This record gives sequence, structure tokens and C-alpha cells, in this order.
Amino acid sequence: MSEAVGVAVLGAGHMGADHVRRIARAVGGARLVAVADPDVARAEAALDGLDVDSGARLYGDPLDAIAAPGVDAVLVASPERAHEEALLAACARGLPVLCEKPLAPDSTASLRVVEAEVRAGRRLIQVGFMRRYDTEYQRLKSLLDSGELGRPLMLHCRHRNVSSPPHFTTPMLISSSVSHEIDAARWLLGQELTAVTVAMPHPSANAPEGLGDPQLVLFETARGALVDVEIFVNSGFAYQVRCEAVCERGSAHIGAEHGLVTETSSGAQRALAQDYLARFADAYDREVRSWVEGVREGRTTGPSAWDGYLAALVAEAGVRAQREGVRVAVPEPAPRPALYA
Amino acid sequence: MSEAVGVAVLGAGHMGADHVRRIARAVGGARLVAVADPDVARAEAALDGLDVDSGARLYGDPLDAIAAPGVDAVLVASPERAHEEALLAACARGLPVLCEKPLAPDSTASLRVVEAEVRAGRRLIQVGFMRRYDTEYQRLKSLLDSGELGRPLMLHCRHRNVSSPPHFTTPMLISSSVSHEIDAARWLLGQELTAVTVAMPHPSANAPEGLGDPQLVLFETARGALVDVEIFVNSGFAYQVRCEAVCERGSAHIGAEHGLVTETSSGAQRALAQDYLARFADAYDREVRSWVEGVREGRTTGPSAWDGYLAALVAEAGVRAQREGVRVAVPEPAPRPALYA
Amino acid sequence: MSEAVGVAVLGAGHMGADHVRRIARAVGGARLVAVADPDVARAEAALDGLDVDSGARLYGDPLDAIAAPGVDAVLVASPERAHEEALLAACARGLPVLCEKPLAPDSTASLRVVEAEVRAGRRLIQVGFMRRYDTEYQRLKSLLDSGELGRPLMLHCRHRNVSSPPHFTTPMLISSSVSHEIDAARWLLGQELTAVTVAMPHPSANAPEGLGDPQLVLFETARGALVDVEIFVNSGFAYQVRCEAVCERGSAHIGAEHGLVTETSSGAQRALAQDYLARFADAYDREVRSWVEGVREGRTTGPSAWDGYLAALVAEAGVRAQREGVRVAVPEPAPRPALYA
Amino acid sequence: MSEAVGVAVLGAGHMGADHVRRIARAVGGARLVAVADPDVARAEAALDGLDVDSGARLYGDPLDAIAAPGVDAVLVASPERAHEEALLAACARGLPVLCEKPLAPDSTASLRVVEAEVRAGRRLIQVGFMRRYDTEYQRLKSLLDSGELGRPLMLHCRHRNVSSPPHFTTPMLISSSVSHEIDAARWLLGQELTAVTVAMPHPSANAPEGLGDPQLVLFETARGALVDVEIFVNSGFAYQVRCEAVCERGSAHIGAEHGLVTETSSGAQRALAQDYLARFADAYDREVRSWVEGVREGRTTGPSAWDGYLAALVAEAGVRAQREGVRVAVPEPAPRPALYA
Repeated sequence: MSEAVGVAVLGAGHMGADHVRRIARAVGGARLVAVADPDVARAEAALDGLDVDSGARLYGDPLDAIAAPGVDAVLVASPERAHEEALLAACARGLPVLCEKPLAPDSTASLRVVEAEVRAGRRLIQVGFMRRYDTEYQRLKSLLDSGELGRPLMLHCRHRNVSSPPHFTTPMLISSSVSHEIDAARWLLGQELTAVTVAMPHPSANAPEGLGDPQLVLFETARGALVDVEIFVNSGFAYQVRCEAVCERGSAHIGAEHGLVTETSSGAQRALAQDYLARFADAYDREVRSWVEGVREGRTTGPSAWDGYLAALVAEAGVRAQREGVRVAVPEPAPRPALYA
Repeated sequence: MSEAVGVAVLGAGHMGADHVRRIARAVGGARLVAVADPDVARAEAALDGLDVDSGARLYGDPLDAIAAPGVDAVLVASPERAHEEALLAACARGLPVLCEKPLAPDSTASLRVVEAEVRAGRRLIQVGFMRRYDTEYQRLKSLLDSGELGRPLMLHCRHRNVSSPPHFTTPMLISSSVSHEIDAARWLLGQELTAVTVAMPHPSANAPEGLGDPQLVLFETARGALVDVEIFVNSGFAYQVRCEAVCERGSAHIGAEHGLVTETSSGAQRALAQDYLARFADAYDREVRSWVEGVREGRTTGPSAWDGYLAALVAEAGVRAQREGVRVAVPEPAPRPALYA
Repeated sequence: MSEAVGVAVLGAGHMGADHVRRIARAVGGARLVAVADPDVARAEAALDGLDVDSGARLYGDPLDAIAAPGVDAVLVASPERAHEEALLAACARGLPVLCEKPLAPDSTASLRVVEAEVRAGRRLIQVGFMRRYDTEYQRLKSLLDSGELGRPLMLHCRHRNVSSPPHFTTPMLISSSVSHEIDAARWLLGQELTAVTVAMPHPSANAPEGLGDPQLVLFETARGALVDVEIFVNSGFAYQVRCEAVCERGSAHIGAEHGLVTETSSGAQRALAQDYLARFADAYDREVRSWVEGVREGRTTGPSAWDGYLAALVAEAGVRAQREGVRVAVPEPAPRPALYA
Repeated sequence: MSEAVGVAVLGAGHMGADHVRRIARAVGGARLVAVADPDVARAEAALDGLDVDSGARLYGDPLDAIAAPGVDAVLVASPERAHEEALLAACARGLPVLCEKPLAPDSTASLRVVEAEVRAGRRLIQVGFMRRYDTEYQRLKSLLDSGELGRPLMLHCRHRNVSSPPHFTTPMLISSSVSHEIDAARWLLGQELTAVTVAMPHPSANAPEGLGDPQLVLFETARGALVDVEIFVNSGFAYQVRCEAVCERGSAHIGAEHGLVTETSSGAQRALAQDYLARFADAYDREVRSWVEGVREGRTTGPSAWDGYLAALVAEAGVRAQREGVRVAVPEPAPRPALYA
């Protein structure tokens, strides 16, 4: 395909509007063709924010956007309850999809999506676990894969947000936030997560009433490594994602902030990222750019629907461990289809 | 212009090939239409490196590429001796140009380009001083402009390359390398540079025979600040660009590397950038993206031909100071045309 | 006492020899009077290492050293099995003692030491939890006490050695190594530790056969905080002690190494501490200096025998948790004597 | 000498009081015997600050203190105009002296001190260039001496104080402050400084009326290296001493602060040292401890009176360069006596 890829973006919220901007401005070889949101004014605002006339059309119904003329590929950034319908429609039309995580609200729905893709007979779906596209994560992955540091023994992960969105619940600290670490740990270690324990300190005074925030989530892996994750969604001070891999012959870490340092009578100071779009802006660009290139060449790589399904399975075990206060083994997954071999 | 901007890239060397990739892949709203290089095989190689069929046409003569159908704007990445002809041709056609630095080989030629743009009656030319598009430089600029730290007193700059290209000469340490600091200092301080002194230690054993490398270049400014620049183009270990602004109420610095840290029995280690395309990849992307957006909206901002002319004037004084071993005052520039008011 | 304090050092191993040097050279107001070690040649070697003639006398039996003329205070650096006898003898003579940790091999023996001190009727014993004298720990303690960051929610601790001494056992990772974190956490948080869980990954290939190294030890505290400790005694690369306190309004961390940074074609490199005497040299000096000053003024402060007893109690629960693979509650301690109110 | 060394401290100001405390508390093998200050109340306050009764006697006249019973060595911390008399008296009595820098107010007086020591026939005087005792400086020195990085090409030095004492003058930025860098550069490079140029920006608004602060001082060395020093004594924000050595095969730097890092909604913050006694506390301890050990063994090493004389000679050239605005060659020194071979 020498033509630019025509993309329909579904959802024009915080994340969707950012993808609209990205497709229109930051990714060569793509053309913004359609934007869908039940709140059409929101979709319009996303287009207006572009400064240039993109020529894209607006839709209230995502299925109309998927079926619109000129649409070669679909970027799903709608709420998670709307994912399954959009993914099944795209699979039915044989359209490549980049779907923001989670793939679907639970592992059962995720498995239905996997089955739809298997029926389509080829990989069409990429899940938006964009950390795999972050330069620092990629360097850490290369280092671990090289074997230079020996076998990984522990991953220490920190995941902090300034504050949680309204209606964020205690289980969502795992299903929505820690799900990033679930995928990243599986990918970095090349191992499945097999059990999970959750420790909950007295909640922070800054957490909304009833929210168990922060938490310490401890995963065990198939070949005997440990992964501990501090998740703190109302840290009040920064968006931070850090990871240290402790191995047999050394340790490596990523996620230390940098940039402008100011030294004044208040001491040395460095601004901290406040938002994941800021921290991972380059990773999102790289993810979407890589996806568009794949589409032009007729292939889909990146995190698969199967990865999305497994992440859901582990997250569900985590939510149970959180609720029951005990170690919970991750249940046996469905048999892995040959498509994801 | 709702259509994508058709871009001709002149020059397919190290820098040009990178811009070809950038226009084709990393910048939305642009279309690669033409690539010109006297060595057509080199231009072809640049296109082949893209993985996708861009649809661009190849030219041996840059003037043909400028005149090609569908060309809305020109990106000049050819050797500096070829700049003037290309700039005059683009101005004559009223095409916006992004021209890699230096604008022209000397201040006299630069002034001719300024005059051509003045005749065209509007700003068409942006010079590729891409540090102005680097996030850290932009933060430092904002901080200085805010007045929070008081008046700037000194800038300490470090500019190191792993090794110099063949045929690099002692004057080029100033005219080609320090020219970045000349523009950055003028921009950060909002002051003209008025005099320059060059101190040269015994050259490094790793410098090619006859090359005076490293050097310490000391600039004075119109309102009494000092700017010292270590330029070391055969450092052998890294590409590093650092800047510390010492002000009346504090100091701020940029350019400390970051990323993956590995701790082993050899100590803590961090990789160092080896190449300016790596260090400033995001700045180049941002520069070209901003330029393309401007073209779509019918405006040219960014570093002007006038900035290019003044940088040449200061660099020439630097080369004289280097040769004569004394402090040299920067000569009075030509009167500033109203276009650059 | 305007005279210098006469000190007997018991034990002339790695730690004892260091204290011999410290008393003789680095602490004003103290005089080295006696050194005892069953291996008298080792004690002699420690004295010979001083370069100056200290005038101290050698003893094979620690009780003889305690009873020697001119001994005003005792520094116990002998193996832990020899502590109780020495402490009881010093208490009987009313001599102030600085005793390396642990106070005694178990909580029962520790309680006997507490009772002996209670019988003596005043505080004579200081336990060598020297982290309380480290500048960075002291700053972290002040910050937490100030309330500026709100309530502490989690402490993330890392404790790594290059390699373990011969005969080091799996339980000793907790009783000998993590005991430092047990005291530091109690002191930093001003809270007792109430329960402990231990997770053990597959041991590192560098750990001696049969040693469960590394481990992740998770403590709960009386007011709902969590303390996680990575203990890794065969890390192979460095001696590292780090601590991050995550609080309601921010986070603070200590233990990042510093010093000379070298940048070469291998990248940026920083040496890592290999030994606790190097990392905590200043803390040891400060600890002993503070103890000697107290002795001259007739008072003993610092970590008490009671702190030593409680550390033993928590460590014993940790060893049980490690062995049984379950969460273990720390048993109720003996009633706290008024001496330690 | 197995007895403790009896020390007389001359001067009980900021620096002197600190040495009184150091001799009494932080240095084994030394005994504080006498403290002299024309302002006897000040000397008394220094002793009262010790918490312990040192047994030292007070003197108004430094010559009486030097002659007091039990004095084995003299520590000179009085104002520089009082140094020569004290040094000559100590030399006459054959007493070892540690003399705070500068050795004497100018190079002529310094040379008289050199001659007095030569007459005494052996090294008695150590000058207080304590940076040679700082761990980071020592590591940098070892690294440069090892040849690992090749020949040093440039030293970039930063020397900042929060504010200057009353009556500090423009020449004193060089003679009193940069004199530390003069000695450190000679020592690190093993080369003499041969010429000096001073560049002065418009003074900071925070500098007292008439004080040329900051300055950039540029030294040339005998074998073609460059040393640039930013001296800024009213930086308003920190006491900072940094040094980067740029060599043929890499670069090394020291002086980056460290310690407790706090992350809050204001960003990441680190306290900065405010005072040289804080920054170099360990170096002072190590310097005095090394001197006392030498005295006990009958030898004097460390920076010599000859080093003090040469530092004065270079500083005088610097003050002339500052005043005349030109490059000034350092004059030929007197012939080097065999004592300092």
C-alpha cells in the first residue's frame, strides 16, 4: 500500500483525542478518516484542536465509522465496555485494529475476542500495552534477553499517579493500573505469572473514601521469579513508572526522571511528570507508527489478543487476592490457539 | 491546505536520509514527493531504507526537484556550498524552505540570502538550529525568560563528538560545531554576542594531525554576560551537549544523560549517546513537524535567515580569534531589515 | 571526666579491628587500653595495623580485659555467642558498653541481658544499630518526624552484599542481615512491627548450595504501614543499602551512591561500595564518638538493650515465616521495664 | 611518641573553633593543650562548645601558647596577617605546624617562611590545602595519575559560596577563594600554572556594591592544559565545589551533591550544602588526623610551604590579570630549595 493508511479513531476522550492528534500530526503514512464518539461534540472538539483541517468525518456510532469509506484500519480508544463490539466488527471486516488496553472488561469477553480473531484466520488485533514501545523498557528487555546479567530474580515496580479519576475502585488498581505491569512483567521475563498476593496498608488520607490506595501486589512466576508492584494512584505528586530487575549478576533499572535541574536557595529541584501522556508520549508515537507501518505491509505484530486475555486472567486473580487477603493461584488458561504460537 | 504538504528533500547524506525517513514516517500532514542528490544511488538508498513505498521521485539536480510537480515546500540538507543556489531558487518560486545550518558558507553569502528573502517580501526560510526545538532547551529558555532566577551571568556549554568527519578543520570547530552554541546563546539570553576569545590547549592525541581539538571559546554579550564553550570533536567517548546557566538567584542545567542504569561488579554504568541524531531525534521531529504545520497554515516562524546571517558573522570573528590568539570584537552587522523586526 | 575514656575492645575480627583503629585514631577523648581475642595473634595484628604505639594491652579472655586497670568502658565486637557473658560482666561492674548487634543470639538471651541491665538500675548498654548514626538516615528520620510528607505508608528497603561469609544460613538472612532493617524501620516509623511474610524466589546461581538467597521480606506495622525488604547477600556486585519512604504527600529516598563519575567509550561509570565498613564508615565514627562523649558525661543513649530484644523477637518471627511459608504474627513481648519508658 | 600529641590551636574564629572541636573530639592520639586568641572570650566560647572539659589552657598571645608546657605541635587558624610570626616562632622551636591557607599574605612573606623552614633543616610546615584530603579529589587524582584516561586537556572548576564575608574584595576572589583551585590544579595535573586571564561579567545584583562577582579565571599550564574556574562568592544558593577533568580518552567529574531526595508536588528536591565546613568536614578530619599521625611518627608530609609560596605567586598574577584585563604570565619563582625536591 503506497497510499496513506485511512484510520478511524473510536472514542474522543483524553486518550482518544491524543490519538486523533497523533494520527493527524505525528505519524507519517496515516490519514485520519473518521472519528467516532457518542458525544459528537467531544469528537468535534478533538478535531478542532488540530489547528489544521484533517478532512476526517465525525460519527456518533462506532460501527458506522468502522464501515465508513476509506477506512483501512481502526484505533479503539473508547471505554472498555465498547471494545468487544468494535473488535468483532473490525475482525468481521478483516480490518487491522489497535485496541487500547484492556482488550475487554474480563477474561471471558477477552476469550471471545480471541476466538473471533482465530476465526478470521490471521492476526488483526494489537493491544495497546505501549510500554513495550518505550525506549527504556526496550533496553531493559534487550539486556535481560542478552543473558548478560544472568537469570532475573526479582522485578521491583513502582506505578504512581497524581490522582485517580472519579469512580475509580479498589479492584481497578489492579485491573486497570497494574495490568500494565502484568503485561510488562510477562514480556520482560518471558514467563507466565502463576500466583498473586496483595498487601494493603492503611489507605492514604488523600485517597477517596473507600479506596484501598496504595497497595503492594506480589506476583510469582512460572520459573521462580518474584515481581512486586507498588500501585499508588493518589500519590499527589507525580506520574512515575519505575522498574528494577535484580538478576544473578547485577541489577538494572529504568524510569529515573531527568531533564532541567534548577539549583536555588530552596535546593536542587527537578520537575516530575504529572501525566502518562507526558511520560510515555514517545512510546505512544512509536507504538502507533509501528502499527501503521505494519498495516501498510500487511502484518500485525505487537501485543496480541492472547496477551490481552492472559493479562485479564492474572488481573482477575489479583482482584480475588486483594478481596480475600490470601495468595491466589492464577487459573489455568484456555488452550493457546496456534495463531499465537 | 487540507492536503498533505508535498516536500522535496535536497541531499541524501547522513542528515538528508534521516529527514527522508522523518517526512515519510514521523510527520503527519506531509508527503515525500521528491529526493535530490547528485549521487542518485545514495538518494535511492535513502528511499529503500523506508520499508514502505513512499511514491517519491528521484532527482540528480536539486533545481529539478524544487520545480517538480506537487512540491509545496523544500527541505535543504545538501552540503553548505549548495545552499545558496537552492535557497534563491525556492525564494524565487515562493516556496517555504527548511535549511540545515549553516545558512550559507559565510556571512557575505548569508546576507545575499537575507536580501533574496527580503525581495520575496515575506518569511520563507527557517534555519535548522534545532536546539530551539529540544524540550530541555525550551524549558531552560522558559525559565530564563520567567526572570525567576534573575539575570543570567554565565553560560557554561559543553559540546562533544565521538570523532570528527574526514577533512574537518580547526576553523570548522567554530564555524560548524560552535555555531549551534552561538545561536542557542543568542536565543537563550536574548542578547547579541559582541566579542570572542579562543584558548587552545595542546591538542588531544586522538585528534587528527593538525587539528586544534579541543578548544575553549569564550564569548562576551551585549549586556555583560559570559558564554564559555568547550568544543571537543574527537572526545572518543560520547556525543554530549550540556548547558548550565548561572544566574543571580540560582543556576540551571540541561543535558545530563539518563535512561537504563546497570549495576554490576564493574560498577554502575549508563550508556552515553554516540550521535547527534540519537541525542536530538525528538528535537528534529518537533522541528520538522512544527515547520510542516506552519506551511499548512501559510506561515514560517523559527530561526530566520537573519539568525543564520548573525551566526555566520559571530563564527567568523571566532575563527579570527582562534587564528590570531587574541580577543576579537564581532563586527557591526548590516542594518536589520524590517522583515525580521 | 576530663581524662580520656579508657576503652577495652573485645574481639579483633573484621569489625573489631576496625573499632580498634577507630578508638586509637578517629575518636578524640578515648584511649585504647585493652584488646581481647581468644586468638591473641589476631589481636596483636589489629594493634600492629595502627602505625602508632597505642600502649594498649592484649588479652585472650574478654573477662580479663573488662577487669583490666584503666578500663572505663567496653566495646563488644566478639561473636554473638560471646555477647551475653561480656554484657553481664560489664553490667556487674557498672561499665558502659557499646555492643555490636545482635545483642544476643535469641530473644530469650536478649531478655536476660535486659533484666541484668534493669537490675543495674540504669542504662549501661547501647546496641550497635549504627544506621541511626548515618547522616542520610538521620535526615530521613527528621523528615518523617516533621510530618511534612504526611503519614508513612510504605518503606521499600534494599540490602545487598557482594557475597555472604562462609557458614551463612538461610535464617541468617533475616536474623543477621534484615535485623538492621527491623531496627531502622521501628526507629524511622516509631511503630512496632506486628507481622511478617517471606517470599523466596528460586535462589541465585551465585548463592552457595542450599542458601535461599535472595528473599523478599514483608513486614506489617502496628498502625497499618508496610515495610518490604529485598535481602540479597550474594548480589555479586555491591554493598547497597537503600530506603524509600512513601508517604501521603510525597516520597523520600536515601542510599543512591555518588562520588567520582568517569565517562569513557564504555559509557558513564561510577564505582559501587563493596563493603559496609566503606558505606557506613562515617556512621560508625559518629556512633562511637557519640558513645564516648556520653560516657564522659555519665549517660548512655542510642539504641537500647530493649531495642535489641525487640529486634530479636521480630527476627525470630521472620525466620518462622520463612520456614513455614506463611504470614506470622510477631508474639507479644515481655512487659516493657520502666528503664526503657 | 606513644603519648597523645599536645596541640596548641591559634585563632578561635569560625575555622579555629572548628579545629578546637576536631582536636578535642574527632582525632585520636591528639590532646588539646592550648587555645590562643587576642579575644580571650572567643577562645573560651570555643572551649565551652565542647561539652567536655578538655583541660586546655587559654592564651591571648599566640607566642605564649606556642611556648606553653606540653605543646608538641601547632595548628595555625589565626588571620593571615598573623601567620608569619607564628610560623617563624614554631620553626625556631622545631615544632610541626599545620597552617591554614594562605601561608602568608603575599609571595614575598611566603618566601621568608620557606627560608625559615630551610634554615630549620627539615620539613615542619604543612599548609591547609585540605582538598587534597577529600575522598573525591583523591579518587580523581588517582585516576589521572593512572593514565587510564590519557593526558588531561582541561579542568572545568566551579567554586560557589552562598555569600561573601564583610570586607571581601574583588582581588580576594582570586587570592582567598581561587587559591584552592590553584593548589588543586597543580596537584591534580602535576604541572605548574604559567599564565592567567580573568573575564568578568556584569556583577550579580546580589554582590555587594563594588565587588566583581562572579568571575571566570582561565589558567594555562606548563604542558599545555587549560584550567577554567568559575568563582561566584555570592551565588545566594549553595556552597559548591565541582571539578571535571577532560582527558584524551574520557572525562571524570566530582562534586555532584547527593543524599536525601524528596519527591513532592513541588518536584524532586535535594538539599544543597551551604558551608565549606559541611561540604569538606570529612576532608578536614582526614587532614588533621593525617597530620597528627605524621607528628607522632616524626614526619611532615602534605602540602608544603613551597606549595604555599607558589600558590601566592600564581594568585598575584591572577589579581594583576583581573585588574589589567589582560593575560598575565606567572613570574619565574625563586630557585626551589633541595628540601622540597
